[in-house]
Amino acid sequence: MKRAIFIGRFQPFHRGHLRVVEAIADQVDELVLGIGSAGDSHTANDPFTGGERILMITKSLTGLGVLTYAVPIEDLERNSVWVSHVESMSPRFDIAFSNNPLVVRLFEEANVPVEQVPMVDRHRYEGTEVRRRMIADDGWEELVPPAVVDVIEEIDGIERIQQVARSDESSV
Amino acid sequence: MKRAIFIGRFQPFHRGHLRVVEAIADQVDELVLGIGSAGDSHTANDPFTGGERILMITKSLTGLGVLTYAVPIEDLERNSVWVSHVESMSPRFDIAFSNNPLVVRLFEEANVPVEQVPMVDRHRYEGTEVRRRMIADDGWEELVPPAVVDVIEEIDGIERIQQVARSDESSV
Amino acid sequence: MKRAIFIGRFQPFHRGHLRVVEAIADQVDELVLGIGSAGDSHTANDPFTGGERILMITKSLTGLGVLTYAVPIEDLERNSVWVSHVESMSPRFDIAFSNNPLVVRLFEEANVPVEQVPMVDRHRYEGTEVRRRMIADDGWEELVPPAVVDVIEEIDGIERIQQVARSDESSV
Amino acid sequence: MKRAIFIGRFQPFHRGHLRVVEAIADQVDELVLGIGSAGDSHTANDPFTGGERILMITKSLTGLGVLTYAVPIEDLERNSVWVSHVESMSPRFDIAFSNNPLVVRLFEEANVPVEQVPMVDRHRYEGTEVRRRMIADDGWEELVPPAVVDVIEEIDGIERIQQVARSDESSV
Amino acid sequence: MKRAIFIGRFQPFHRGHLRVVEAIADQVDELVLGIGSAGDSHTANDPFTGGERILMITKSLTGLGVLTYAVPIEDLERNSVWVSHVESMSPRFDIAFSNNPLVVRLFEEANVPVEQVPMVDRHRYEGTEVRRRMIADDGWEELVPPAVVDVIEEIDGIERIQQVARSDESSV
Amino acid sequence: MKRAIFIGRFQPFHRGHLRVVEAIADQVDELVLGIGSAGDSHTANDPFTGGERILMITKSLTGLGVLTYAVPIEDLERNSVWVSHVESMSPRFDIAFSNNPLVVRLFEEANVPVEQVPMVDRHRYEGTEVRRRMIADDGWEELVPPAVVDVIEEIDGIERIQQVARSDESSV
Repeated sequence: MKRAIFIGRFQPFHRGHLRVVEAIADQVDELVLGIGSAGDSHTANDPFTGGERILMITKSLTGLGVLTYAVPIEDLERNSVWVSHVESMSPRFDIAFSNNPLVVRLFEEANVPVEQVPMVDRHRYEGTEVRRRMIADDGWEELVPPAVVDVIEEIDGIERIQQVARSDESSV
Repeated sequence: MKRAIFIGRFQPFHRGHLRVVEAIADQVDELVLGIGSAGDSHTANDPFTGGERILMITKSLTGLGVLTYAVPIEDLERNSVWVSHVESMSPRFDIAFSNNPLVVRLFEEANVPVEQVPMVDRHRYEGTEVRRRMIADDGWEELVPPAVVDVIEEIDGIERIQQVARSDESSV
Repeated sequence: MKRAIFIGRFQPFHRGHLRVVEAIADQVDELVLGIGSAGDSHTANDPFTGGERILMITKSLTGLGVLTYAVPIEDLERNSVWVSHVESMSPRFDIAFSNNPLVVRLFEEANVPVEQVPMVDRHRYEGTEVRRRMIADDGWEELVPPAVVDVIEEIDGIERIQQVARSDESSV
Repeated sequence: MKRAIFIGRFQPFHRGHLRVVEAIADQVDELVLGIGSAGDSHTANDPFTGGERILMITKSLTGLGVLTYAVPIEDLERNSVWVSHVESMSPRFDIAFSNNPLVVRLFEEANVPVEQVPMVDRHRYEGTEVRRRMIADDGWEELVPPAVVDVIEEIDGIERIQQVARSDESSV
Repeated sequence: MKRAIFIGRFQPFHRGHLRVVEAIADQVDELVLGIGSAGDSHTANDPFTGGERILMITKSLTGLGVLTYAVPIEDLERNSVWVSHVESMSPRFDIAFSNNPLVVRLFEEANVPVEQVPMVDRHRYEGTEVRRRMIADDGWEELVPPAVVDVIEEIDGIERIQQVARSDESSV
Repeated sequence: MKRAIFIGRFQPFHRGHLRVVEAIADQVDELVLGIGSAGDSHTANDPFTGGERILMITKSLTGLGVLTYAVPIEDLERNSVWVSHVESMSPRFDIAFSNNPLVVRLFEEANVPVEQVPMVDRHRYEGTEVRRRMIADDGWEELVPPAVVDVIEEIDGIERIQQVARSDESSV
């Protein structure tokens, strides 16, 4: 039994993430999706709560064929203990996937096997593009799975990101 | 679509919890299991990590018939903001279940519908009894679902709780 | 111009506190009431929020004749920085009043003038007695100023303390 | 009895804030001034402590005619629980006033009535202008109430903001 | 080059600790003394600050013959990340020494070599006995190295522990 | 007996720091090196852990002739209590040295004697230059003491800073 973890902020979970998940799913029996900065929400860069992102991920992966876990990871603001924190909040995993050089480095120093995910650049910038389109009301729906559209509509997410993007400062 | 949350520490997830989950599952479409004090572990009273409890719950509920979410909830040490914290980390829910009078009170003051779970006393004390039997090596397996036995064996959980129970103080 | 600070948890503000405030008010021009453990609430020992205690104090002292400030002080869990924390959250003060030996010690080590308040023992134990009577529904009203009775009734405070006192553990 | 809360950082409390307070005071019986980021101080953007800002506000509003409360609100760094945090630290309020889109959004999502304050743009930028003039020693006194001038002189505030503004980084 | 870490609270550093250090020093080239709960102070159980304990240790070990490091370790309140936290605050070490079963377990699970220190029971209870004698003014000096007597006298430590021991609650 | 504290981030400890230490050492009997932001690591601006910096400092100062203490100071994110925090984590000191205007101001307001260190500008910018050269692999070794070269090579520090510098965001 081989279990992997894929770490991201998933703000929101989009088609680039879905392609990565599908690629990893071919290689493992179970997959944890570690939702980074789970406590952040209501800003232009981090609009959705940890719970909303759990919903997006779970609903988008119902037909995937491997068992998945959507696990919120709150920030500890300490890079040096971050791997231990992830390991304590997640079911034990055999390998980690990420494209963030810092995340890769931290897993390497902790002797956890870690791999780059495929389709780096597309994945890397799609989150920013999805949020830009949400704020501009400019065709964001095609960049995310249908289940994510449903979640965002249910929580009135577009109005939220547009409103907080007008804020001088994104934290009260 | 009706979604409920059932809050507990699940140290470990035992047959009493399972009966409660099955009773709630008859009344709702989806069920969130909110894992309280998710950051606590390695003490006689809180032996297992948040990730280990996610595993116990998910593996025990595979055949349940309703969609479940196992969501770790880290302590904020502030009762007055606890309901908001749970709401931000969980998929939106319509009703909460708990037997902890404090939890019931906090949801009531926040105008969240909340109900006592059935079989109060059995549920209430079973966690303590399971941990006592684990420390004494005295037939704990019959009190938990088979999947939980597997998880605890995989993580060497009995040796862990026995060792930390010998500690003068349960936190370093 | 002489300004004093009087530190307490004020759970709730009672007639013993009021007598201390009146005694201090004769000696100073302005008085800060520092509300300790301001973030704690909804337990048998700390039933009321910081905001509810601000209300109790302000309403009880309207006719006092000296300018008062009710200032919530959240716990920092670090005795060694506690005086600096109080100084940063309060208007500057010339003298502190307390009967808690730890508080007296901390101010002394920081070279802040500090005095015992009069009527030590009565003051010291009245908070516990008020809460005991609230839980037992046994004549608590005579121990607090009339304005505090009003606040507690408005917030449904008796039902709250009775309910959380039934909780196995006082923090979720 | 109608009580409002007006949220700001009040770095420092200036004439724009005073005009807003006077406008709100006509509509309510009591007014809470929630002092945001109360724990921040000694930076060019947040020069004054929570206690110093309590003093500025209280001294500036002595003749206002409605009962006011100056309540420090420490940052929790979690937008999703911020409304609960404010509610726990403040006397209960019926309506909130703010011009910060994020604050407005958070209150709306929590079903708390919230209104924009009048004179948005003037209010919005006056804090920055007051601090710029303080650093440049360029006629800041006319932008704040006389009581605020007194407080800033008493605490040697101009020298402080000028000195910390020379710092490479505003936090140690 | 072999470097060890010896973890304790050192409240205060006493002759039992010294004997352990001398025993370990025979086996290694360098020794880190990790000062646990470094942020706790001014209570009957944790009377001395992290800095005061650094002084006690450094002054007591000047003639030891191996290079020592006295490193304060603040509590993180998370057992599952505690080993990573220690590793990040300490020079890299090859082996850990402790008699606390929890500490031993945490290092074992993190695959760090860990050994029990010799003279377990004497070491274990001497800290409590030293503090009892300090509070009772009953011959504590013979239980600690001479340099520790000097430090405690310089900081007026006996008066401090006696005063805070009279406090109803040991944290403000 | 006169003891000083010199505060810096020491990312890494370089020859500019060493010159300052040597200049201070002529004026005092003992010297504390307070390692600021001790919990930060694995970013381009703060590459090394607190423990690694303790090692760099201790190894570089073995022949200094005055007793030195390398003390990690974790961030508290509260300027107003920062001096108390430093005082609690460090052996008592008579004077502080720093070139950071904020640090100087905070010590001054706390009535702690504080002095600018000599060679301000060279010291100030050398940290940035050392890190730039590390990332560019461009002769960084000549800017740090030989013991620091050894530490950085032992921990594979150049590969670390180069890898995390490629990260989109420096905190996970």
